[in-house]
Amino acid sequence: MASPDAPLLRALNGDRPERTPVWFMRQAGRSLPEYRELRVGTRMLDACLTPDLAAEITLQPVRRHGVDAGIFFSDIVVPLRLAGVEVEIEPGRGPVFASPVRTAADVDRLTSIDPDVVAQSAGPIKEAIRYVTQELGDVPLIGFAGAPFTLAAYLVEGGPSKEHMRARAMMAGDPASWNKLAGWLAQVSHAFLGAQIEAGASAVQLFDSWAGSLSPAAYRKSIAPHSTAALAGHDVPVIHFGVGTGPFLDDMRLGGVADAVGVDWRMPLDEAAGIVGEDVTLQGNIDPAMLQAPWPTLEAHVRDVLSRGEAARAHIVNLGHGVPPETDPDVLTRIVELVHEAQ
Amino acid sequence: MASPDAPLLRALNGDRPERTPVWFMRQAGRSLPEYRELRVGTRMLDACLTPDLAAEITLQPVRRHGVDAGIFFSDIVVPLRLAGVEVEIEPGRGPVFASPVRTAADVDRLTSIDPDVVAQSAGPIKEAIRYVTQELGDVPLIGFAGAPFTLAAYLVEGGPSKEHMRARAMMAGDPASWNKLAGWLAQVSHAFLGAQIEAGASAVQLFDSWAGSLSPAAYRKSIAPHSTAALAGHDVPVIHFGVGTGPFLDDMRLGGVADAVGVDWRMPLDEAAGIVGEDVTLQGNIDPAMLQAPWPTLEAHVRDVLSRGEAARAHIVNLGHGVPPETDPDVLTRIVELVHEAQ
Repeated sequence: MASPDAPLLRALNGDRPERTPVWFMRQAGRSLPEYRELRVGTRMLDACLTPDLAAEITLQPVRRHGVDAGIFFSDIVVPLRLAGVEVEIEPGRGPVFASPVRTAADVDRLTSIDPDVVAQSAGPIKEAIRYVTQELGDVPLIGFAGAPFTLAAYLVEGGPSKEHMRARAMMAGDPASWNKLAGWLAQVSHAFLGAQIEAGASAVQLFDSWAGSLSPAAYRKSIAPHSTAALAGHDVPVIHFGVGTGPFLDDMRLGGVADAVGVDWRMPLDEAAGIVGEDVTLQGNIDPAMLQAPWPTLEAHVRDVLSRGEAARAHIVNLGHGVPPETDPDVLTRIVELVHEAQ
Repeated sequence: MASPDAPLLRALNGDRPERTPVWFMRQAGRSLPEYRELRVGTRMLDACLTPDLAAEITLQPVRRHGVDAGIFFSDIVVPLRLAGVEVEIEPGRGPVFASPVRTAADVDRLTSIDPDVVAQSAGPIKEAIRYVTQELGDVPLIGFAGAPFTLAAYLVEGGPSKEHMRARAMMAGDPASWNKLAGWLAQVSHAFLGAQIEAGASAVQLFDSWAGSLSPAAYRKSIAPHSTAALAGHDVPVIHFGVGTGPFLDDMRLGGVADAVGVDWRMPLDEAAGIVGEDVTLQGNIDPAMLQAPWPTLEAHVRDVLSRGEAARAHIVNLGHGVPPETDPDVLTRIVELVHEAQ
């Protein structure tokens, strides 16, 4: 069981621990040779639903890098699979759905599935998490889920898309179907987060990776209420993450529901702190592109991120988006050392 | 020869013509059945370099939709092909380069090519443009080129990429190579725009489609000077377009070099006008996603765009990004009629 004094949890509660906590989105994954070895012959969603595999993959980066949190190895479409939706993750492409959800009838069919099924069928997830949290000891485990908009962007399109136009068209052209779909997805994500917390996750993060394709007005009207529903009412701290969400960063606080807000690499943390104020912790915002730059450039960038992060009530170091698969893992370890030493 | 009283040119010069001008990025292309028919059996770059094909494709949407401008059918990598760079456009993927430009030595090799070669080998382009401008009569033709950052994003990566990390890493980690590369690309784009103007283009547009992946600070320091060099010194009005550039929209004016600035769908035009002030025309900003929405939703959106556009010194109606290939062309014609009638 993670200690409440763990730097990550203290930072989420608004304290400034002696050691600034650091972890990386997608730290469990393709950047690690031990991950690639373990995954040979196993499809992504099968790996997510095999407790000993999911547990081992979750633990790998914590052992290797000495990060301040594990993030449970899973995928944002796992709860949809648990709900019985036909979905597969194609290597190099992403989630692909057998039946895109485009019409009012499609939405009715999908949302007739009881979201409680997700929690009821989450046995393998909970088993993996119980083992992981035991192994992690003092280090907290973060559970996660996809935000309603990002999940809907995949579902309506039937797969990955660049500007998520079909989902945005539904939002404007058929708001009743949109709200039904996004409301159902919020319940699904809420149930999936709840299952992870019940099994031992010490914090949860909601990923709205595609929210940056929206105007602030559309975000406020059609998205924020559903993301709030997904994150509200959990009894652990919650982190709300998006990419390109600078133009509506204050809305990402979800009216105070989020204990921490993620900031990508586009906006410096001192500016972000000025926008979101004193009631929220900031997480981020190392530019993943800098992982490919020579170390002196990267080191100067990390120090700059740390220094600007002092403007926030508390700061959890992370990348502005996930670890790119081609990243040299030794560079990540070096960043952890730098962050832990730099006081 | 286009009339200086053409609504597009008046709007670029800061007037408000009786009829608000409208055209669409990628209006010449896959949304038109007559285009798809004409392209059968011809590779994209071959079509761009075959004068009668490029001319006919340019004219198709002007005839069909009655838009207020033609945009020359080409691709941002055409000048690189003219300079002798090995590049192909793969259907469904985008530009792919035989040799990515990643190291200082790669940059030295590429930039040893004299950018004047582009103008010297632009014969087929100029031939097509001379024919097009004759056919267009009063309707102006817009020439275009890729901005140094967007071109570099493809070149450094070797093909399309999501967050353009290799180019951004070079920018931070090896600024000397970056500035050499971007400076050379600015000369190449400048030469390509110059050739189009010489042959009869009445205005030009610089496309920085990927600039939105940059922080405002990086844009200002490493990009704006090169885009300025590409656009400065032409004797026709210039339009500067980017996607996701709201956070540094004022910088997109390039210190006054741009006569018009493009605004994607994320920021309403009245807000954009407040940022860029009275010295620049705004172009945009219909959300391409709305082309898939029912007509009443789209009509209300277009009227909202027109009404907010009144806050700018002048307004050229366009989409916030290019026409999606699956667009019903009749919807575009209907938008043109709506814009022309709505006074």
